[in-house]
Amino acid sequence: MKTQVAIIGAGPSGLLLGQLLHRQGIDNVIVERRSGEYVLSRIRAGVLEQGMVDLLREAGVDQRMDAEGLPHDGFELVFDNRRVRVALDELTGGSKVMVYGQTEVTRDLMEARAAAGATTLYEAENVQPHDLESDSPYLTFEHNGETVRLECDYIAGCDGYHGVSRQSIPQERIKEFEKVYPFGWLGVLSDTPPVSDELIYASHERGFSLCSMRSATRSRYYLQVPLDEKVEDWSDERFWEELKRRLPDEVAAKLVTGPFIEKSIAPLRSYVVEPMQYGRLFLVGDAAHIVPPTGAKGLNLAASDVNTLYRLMVKVYQEGRTDLIERYSQTCLKRIWKAERFSWWMTSMLHNFSDEEDFNSRMQLAELDYVTSSKAGLTTIAENYVGLPYEPLE
Amino acid sequence: MKTQVAIIGAGPSGLLLGQLLHRQGIDNVIVERRSGEYVLSRIRAGVLEQGMVDLLREAGVDQRMDAEGLPHDGFELVFDNRRVRVALDELTGGSKVMVYGQTEVTRDLMEARAAAGATTLYEAENVQPHDLESDSPYLTFEHNGETVRLECDYIAGCDGYHGVSRQSIPQERIKEFEKVYPFGWLGVLSDTPPVSDELIYASHERGFSLCSMRSATRSRYYLQVPLDEKVEDWSDERFWEELKRRLPDEVAAKLVTGPFIEKSIAPLRSYVVEPMQYGRLFLVGDAAHIVPPTGAKGLNLAASDVNTLYRLMVKVYQEGRTDLIERYSQTCLKRIWKAERFSWWMTSMLHNFSDEEDFNSRMQLAELDYVTSSKAGLTTIAENYVGLPYEPLE
Repeated sequence: MKTQVAIIGAGPSGLLLGQLLHRQGIDNVIVERRSGEYVLSRIRAGVLEQGMVDLLREAGVDQRMDAEGLPHDGFELVFDNRRVRVALDELTGGSKVMVYGQTEVTRDLMEARAAAGATTLYEAENVQPHDLESDSPYLTFEHNGETVRLECDYIAGCDGYHGVSRQSIPQERIKEFEKVYPFGWLGVLSDTPPVSDELIYASHERGFSLCSMRSATRSRYYLQVPLDEKVEDWSDERFWEELKRRLPDEVAAKLVTGPFIEKSIAPLRSYVVEPMQYGRLFLVGDAAHIVPPTGAKGLNLAASDVNTLYRLMVKVYQEGRTDLIERYSQTCLKRIWKAERFSWWMTSMLHNFSDEEDFNSRMQLAELDYVTSSKAGLTTIAENYVGLPYEPLE
Repeated sequence: MKTQVAIIGAGPSGLLLGQLLHRQGIDNVIVERRSGEYVLSRIRAGVLEQGMVDLLREAGVDQRMDAEGLPHDGFELVFDNRRVRVALDELTGGSKVMVYGQTEVTRDLMEARAAAGATTLYEAENVQPHDLESDSPYLTFEHNGETVRLECDYIAGCDGYHGVSRQSIPQERIKEFEKVYPFGWLGVLSDTPPVSDELIYASHERGFSLCSMRSATRSRYYLQVPLDEKVEDWSDERFWEELKRRLPDEVAAKLVTGPFIEKSIAPLRSYVVEPMQYGRLFLVGDAAHIVPPTGAKGLNLAASDVNTLYRLMVKVYQEGRTDLIERYSQTCLKRIWKAERFSWWMTSMLHNFSDEEDFNSRMQLAELDYVTSSKAGLTTIAENYVGLPYEPLE
């Protein structure tokens, strides 16, 4: 079996890259360890930057997003019994974000790929990249009981943090950067109307909370919890009670409660690997970097990697610009480190790190007080939240 | 002996407060533990915010500052082999800072006070405030071999971190916030022309350095050094060599070296006490808060406390508004915490905290990269550097 670009992983990054390449006539095959249903069952991010929205349009998967997605031109910061709106569009000269679940993005991309007749091999086991430093790399894997060899020009590793792609790079060729936060997020999904039209990021002495949504009838709420917390210990009732305690009274009073259709705890972590390429293997998205979810940058950052790799592949196949290949990692990393900074900063500013009032907690309050009282400060939040510009390849 | 406002400490804060009050007809006496010569021998800050410049004008001590001070409308940030200018005036709509040494400010204020005939008692020993919670507080001290009792309406504690003022407040009535940084600044003064017309704040893997100045012929340079470093181990030659290694080549090449007329090491610390008042005692400047010197906020923050206390006293004596007295601490602290944040942030971003390249060092670079590439980011630096607006009393 032979293709131009072999893509490992059929999550939103792999599917988006595949679709973009396909529309430019660049042949690609996606190999995914799980089933399509499994991929769709993962509840993840839901706030899309303008750049990602534009990229989905370029991939031709904007129809349902435009019909069902919710454009947001602001969000709220709550701290110290104050509520401050961050007017994204006013502060950035018109930029917005789009609330549209990662699951929906994935579904749209799957359908578009099926309609285009491009190949996705689901439930491929023991995927293994080979000869990455040669001119003719290939993948091997088991599929439908057979061993398959997929020859290709390039390999895109879109298989997440735990995937085989990054693990295929010799340890001495990479450097890893990591920060683990001393708490996690307990996230729930419920078929109740969101408490507010806009997202609410709330700092509170009991811990951070976030009121988000997937649609006008489906809410997503999060609570900062200790790392050793168990989901089983959080009844629906306990979650709602705790959330109410962390929100301003007038917000808590509007909260419509109901049963949860999903409930899970995720640790918070910052992670980056340098470089993001090894021979003909390119790491994309979570395979190369993780951000804590505060600031909604994870999926968007994957999309900006996809954008870079896509433009690079087009230059390679349409203009023979193989000289640009070496720029992939540095081009991606420029933007990644800024998004890592924003995610780390938002996380540091909004979460409770200690039960004590100390210098650090005063710095958090002073930071919130300053940035929300300064137009420049608010603009730094807004321009990062809607997404910094994509870095050019050359 | 009797006065309206007793001021402890004849540093720039006490002298400025005294002069401002005097011009409004509010009687005051300054009591200082040291001699005038000693006070003048302390080499300290040299960058004045617009607000402090205006306050000095209001005090009538602007003549020599206008003649000899150097207005600066920008400074330079150096990092990762890059040089970025922070255009203070352009970014803030016209604000600047004034480079004019604290020693000169103190000298001007001393002379103005002498000319006004107001009383300063130098070399007053064992200064002790009494009956602070009563309506008739007083100071006792030894002066010229006699024990003096100075009765007053209010006491301004302008006697610095180690002074008696803060120590006179019962421990259970205050809360202290502190952060100690794992390094100090080795500072030198030399009669050589400054290497650049503007200040240079340089981040480097060998440690932070700052190129500052007092005049067109007197330079002030600083190096980040470990806390256990000894001044004796730093020959003039070693200092110049180390400074050159931390600066861009083209800057180092322009450095004019010469002997030092002062050389000292100061630890870096953030400190705030809450509240800043106790009965009829008001803490001003270093008596209540310390900032690390990165960002040049120490003296300026003292001036903004002076501004608040001065306006408050005028309201009290001219309009009988004793109801405003309780607002002193909260009014000052609003601005102080923001300046503490800026100083902590500049310090955290520019100093070397570890010999390793790790997530934190990448965050420092990402922060510098982001703030210098964004107009909003640069504006947050500029508007803090020139000084945030003074907080109104009511």
